[in-house]
Amino acid sequence: MKLTILGCYAATPRTLTNPTSQVLEVKNHMFLIDCGEGTQVQLRKHGIKFSRISHIFISHLHGDHFFGLPGLVSTFRLLGREKELHIYGPKGIKEAITMLLKLGDSWTNYPLCFHELTSVDSQVIFEDAKVIVQTIPLDHRVYTNGFLFREKERERTLNIEAVRYYEIDKAYFNTIKKGKDIVTEIGEIIPNRELTFDPPKPTSYAFCSDTAYHPSIVPLIKEVDCLYHEATFLESEVHLAKKTKHATAKEAAEIAKQASVGKLILGHYSTRYSSLELFRKEASVVFEPVELADDGKSFHIG
Amino acid sequence: MKLTILGCYAATPRTLTNPTSQVLEVKNHMFLIDCGEGTQVQLRKHGIKFSRISHIFISHLHGDHFFGLPGLVSTFRLLGREKELHIYGPKGIKEAITMLLKLGDSWTNYPLCFHELTSVDSQVIFEDAKVIVQTIPLDHRVYTNGFLFREKERERTLNIEAVRYYEIDKAYFNTIKKGKDIVTEIGEIIPNRELTFDPPKPTSYAFCSDTAYHPSIVPLIKEVDCLYHEATFLESEVHLAKKTKHATAKEAAEIAKQASVGKLILGHYSTRYSSLELFRKEASVVFEPVELADDGKSFHIG
Repeated sequence: MKLTILGCYAATPRTLTNPTSQVLEVKNHMFLIDCGEGTQVQLRKHGIKFSRISHIFISHLHGDHFFGLPGLVSTFRLLGREKELHIYGPKGIKEAITMLLKLGDSWTNYPLCFHELTSVDSQVIFEDAKVIVQTIPLDHRVYTNGFLFREKERERTLNIEAVRYYEIDKAYFNTIKKGKDIVTEIGEIIPNRELTFDPPKPTSYAFCSDTAYHPSIVPLIKEVDCLYHEATFLESEVHLAKKTKHATAKEAAEIAKQASVGKLILGHYSTRYSSLELFRKEASVVFEPVELADDGKSFHIG
Repeated sequence: MKLTILGCYAATPRTLTNPTSQVLEVKNHMFLIDCGEGTQVQLRKHGIKFSRISHIFISHLHGDHFFGLPGLVSTFRLLGREKELHIYGPKGIKEAITMLLKLGDSWTNYPLCFHELTSVDSQVIFEDAKVIVQTIPLDHRVYTNGFLFREKERERTLNIEAVRYYEIDKAYFNTIKKGKDIVTEIGEIIPNRELTFDPPKPTSYAFCSDTAYHPSIVPLIKEVDCLYHEATFLESEVHLAKKTKHATAKEAAEIAKQASVGKLILGHYSTRYSSLELFRKEASVVFEPVELADDGKSFHIG
C-alpha cells in the first residue's frame, strides 16, 4: 500500500497547509479519503490521475473534510469521465452534492453512486477479490466514521522444491495454494504445510479522523500495519480536545499502543503549534514508531 | 478603486490558476466578487483581511464561481467573526449554503444575510452614502448577473479664493458644496459656479462574467471607467463560445467599444491557449486600452 497525504491540517485551508485528504493506493485501487477544499489542486500537484479514482470515502460532513467534493465531482465531468464514481459518506451527502450540481443546472455524465452511511456499528462498505473496506465508528461532534482498509488473506506460497520432490502435477497447484492437502495415487496424504509456505501477511491501514480518544475502536484496528490517528492538540490543550471531541498526540499514541499497531501516523494538527515535532515527541513517550503526516508526504505500508 | 484579481481562469482550479474571484476596494468597502474554490487561500496569499469583507456578490451558481463560498463562510465563524455578512446571489444560494452548514451541525455565530436575486432587469442591490451597486443582467446558461459598482456623485469642490473674496461665512460651506447659490446680506445672488469647481468624476467599475456577447448591457455600462468582461475563448473558437454562452476576446472588445468604457480588462480564460497575449492581441484590434487580468494582479481604477 502507498499512502499519499494531500492535506493533514485542521480547520481551514491556508497558504501552505491543506485540510484533510489522502490517497491510498492498494491493489490497483486509488482510494480517496476525505476531500477538503483544494483537494483537486493537490491531486494535480502530486500527479495523481483523476481517472484512477473511483471510490471516495468521506469521514464526516465538516467542511474541512468535504468542501472540495462538489468541485472534484464537477471537474470529473469537465474531463469527460465516463466510469462510475462511488462516494461513501454520512447520510445527507447525496442531497448536498446533487443540490449543488442542480443549482448550476449541471449534472454528471458518468454514473455517480452514493453509499450513505448511518450505522453506528462497523460495517463492510466495499469488497472485491483483493481488498475489503469497513467503517470504524468514531466519536466526534457529528456522525463520523474512520475507515479500515485490508488486503484479503493471500494464497499460500508454493514450495517449488517440495512439489518437484513429490512429482505433483501442475493441475494441483491452485488447489495446493488454497491450502488443501494432496492425496497421491497410492493413497498417501501429503499435508499442505509440506508443500507451501505461509503467505505474506495481508497489509492493513486504518484512517481515524476526526475523533476524541475512543478506545472502543481498539479491537477493530488491532495489529493493523499502519494507523493514521488525528492529533489536533497536544496534552497542554487536552481541555480543548475534550470540548471539541478531538484527540491529543498522547491519546493517539495510547490507541496505537493498545491496538499494537505497526506504525502510527499523526495528523489533523491545529495550526496553533510552532512545530510538528512537538506532536512526535509527545506521542513517542507512549508508542513507537511515530511518523508525522505532512502535505505531500508519502508512506509505504506493509 | 483598487481591483485585485484572486482568480480569473475558467472551469476548474489548477496548480497555478484559480477560478473566478476578485476584490474591489472602494470607499472603505472591500467587496468580494465571486468565490471559486480556493478563494480563501488566495485572500490570505494577498494579505486581504477577512474582517474587511462584509459584502459578497455571486454572479451565478456554477461551481467555478461559488464553490469557495461554503468554506469562506465557515472560516469566518472559526475566526470569531461577529459582524454581519451580506451575500448577494441567485435564488437558491441561501438554501445551498445553509444546508452545507447544517450537515456539519454548525452555524454562523455572526449574522449571515442572504439577498437572493431573481430579477431579469437591472436593480440596485446595495447603496450607502458613497457607493451604489446594481446588477447587470447577463446572458449565460444559467441565471447570471454582472455587477456595476459606482461611486456616488461627489460634492462640488470649494473655490477657497472665491469664498474669501466674497467673505462668505464657514457656516455656508456645506450648502455651497451641495451646489446651492448664495444670497448676500444686501440681496446679491452669487451663483454657485463662481464659488465651486466641478467635483472629480465618480469612478465606476463593471464586472461582466460569465456571459455570451450581449450588447443589451451597453446602456447600463456606458462610459464606466473600467469594464471586466469575460473572454473565455478566441474568435477561432467562436463556435464553442456560442454553444457554451461565453464570449470571445473580440466580442468583449466590441462591448467595450460600444459602451465607450475607459479601460477593458479581459479574464475567465479557457486554459486551452498557450499565451494570454493572444487575447490582448485579438481585443486590441477593436478597442484600446486592453489589460489582461491574471491571478494576483491589481488594477487602479479612476
